[in-house]
Amino acid sequence: MQRYFLEQDAELNQRFFIHSTDDIHHMKNVMRSSEGDKIIVNFNNGAYVSSIITMAESIEIETIELIDLVTELPVHITIASGLLKNDKYEWMIQKATELGAAHFIPFVSERTIIKIDHKKIDKRLERFKKIVKEAAEQSYRQQVPSVSFQPSSRALVKLFDDYDYVLIAYEEEAKAGETRKFHAALNTIVPGSNVLMIFGPEGGLSHDELKLFDVQAIGLGPRILRAETAPLYALSAISYFYELMS
Amino acid sequence: MQRYFLEQDAELNQRFFIHSTDDIHHMKNVMRSSEGDKIIVNFNNGAYVSSIITMAESIEIETIELIDLVTELPVHITIASGLLKNDKYEWMIQKATELGAAHFIPFVSERTIIKIDHKKIDKRLERFKKIVKEAAEQSYRQQVPSVSFQPSSRALVKLFDDYDYVLIAYEEEAKAGETRKFHAALNTIVPGSNVLMIFGPEGGLSHDELKLFDVQAIGLGPRILRAETAPLYALSAISYFYELMS
Repeated sequence: MQRYFLEQDAELNQRFFIHSTDDIHHMKNVMRSSEGDKIIVNFNNGAYVSSIITMAESIEIETIELIDLVTELPVHITIASGLLKNDKYEWMIQKATELGAAHFIPFVSERTIIKIDHKKIDKRLERFKKIVKEAAEQSYRQQVPSVSFQPSSRALVKLFDDYDYVLIAYEEEAKAGETRKFHAALNTIVPGSNVLMIFGPEGGLSHDELKLFDVQAIGLGPRILRAETAPLYALSAISYFYELMS
Repeated sequence: MQRYFLEQDAELNQRFFIHSTDDIHHMKNVMRSSEGDKIIVNFNNGAYVSSIITMAESIEIETIELIDLVTELPVHITIASGLLKNDKYEWMIQKATELGAAHFIPFVSERTIIKIDHKKIDKRLERFKKIVKEAAEQSYRQQVPSVSFQPSSRALVKLFDDYDYVLIAYEEEAKAGETRKFHAALNTIVPGSNVLMIFGPEGGLSHDELKLFDVQAIGLGPRILRAETAPLYALSAISYFYELMS
């Protein structure tokens, strides 16, 4: 069943209208839904199997069953990743949403190759948010990850205090055969924590940035992962550790 | 340092010629290498830092230092994944190569949507092999994963005897909240084993296929992963389990 999001609280057997033109387009033209079909709607206070009552300019639905399966990672992972060329960033955030990321911070890293047009950045962020929302619906997420931009590494550092843990994925650790720090870190991070994970752009983080960040660098195994692959490895390992090993 | 592959045995201070036109193009035009530059060459019996001696029609190199870092997963994972639409298969095998897969079996699953033109399949496989080779070089793999095609689920089943373990990633397990079987399986799979992991195409495996395969189905966490994302989750978790937790 397809999932949609409504930013309201809900109770059983309550009716709501879906007004989002994107969602209505998706239900009518992509899913070809009809009245009586079942969908899942994520409300602020939980998810409900819901029945489509009427399909008109807006779509009316009624909640018919509370869903108690938890699909959110028990730790809240923010992926701060240097902006990347082409469509790589877009598919990274799509996959990372499927894999449970809670928040994305695209930032301009020292070695970010693409030119950042600050006039166009808002448009790009809107596109990121749309991709994330669709991926959240398709993967049965209960929360849509948020997206916010930081124009520099220096701006990113100012956010560190908002987090319980900050980790850097650093390719030189992989090359040096480092294999223990990631697992050691996960063993100390308790469910409910807010974790910021920082990833470099193509070419990696600079030594100046590592010095500026001044937090623990972890290796993600012995192979060198591309910039867009590393966050997916980290999120998969975190899911395995917290959701499948316990 | 960039990696290249030569299917020969090597000793220290031995000279070799690189004849592959792809590799020569890559060294000359992409990496802009010059005589005296260092590269890493993977031979059948190990990897060596090598020095470029002469760059002409062929490129002569000399092995100067044995590398003892192991970058291959301790278990040999074959990813048998139903063929997918568009370029999704290509990026899946690129990422799965970075993440350590040993072998790929693209197969025609019951719900495979794309039309398979059996005349064109050889050309498509050549393209897959090229992507895999480049990803192996870039990610410091010591082996280039192989790629072989199977025209049906029935043909795939005939290969099961070649493997120590066969696992199916099944989305219904995720929806049902199954969270223990993957970890239990990894706990029984010893290093050196050959493992076949089967993934459905868009729309998943059919019930008939599950019955035909008749092997253990495992869940990959509570979120529904796209067909191209599931193999990346599995490989990342396997790397974490065998390479970072021990």
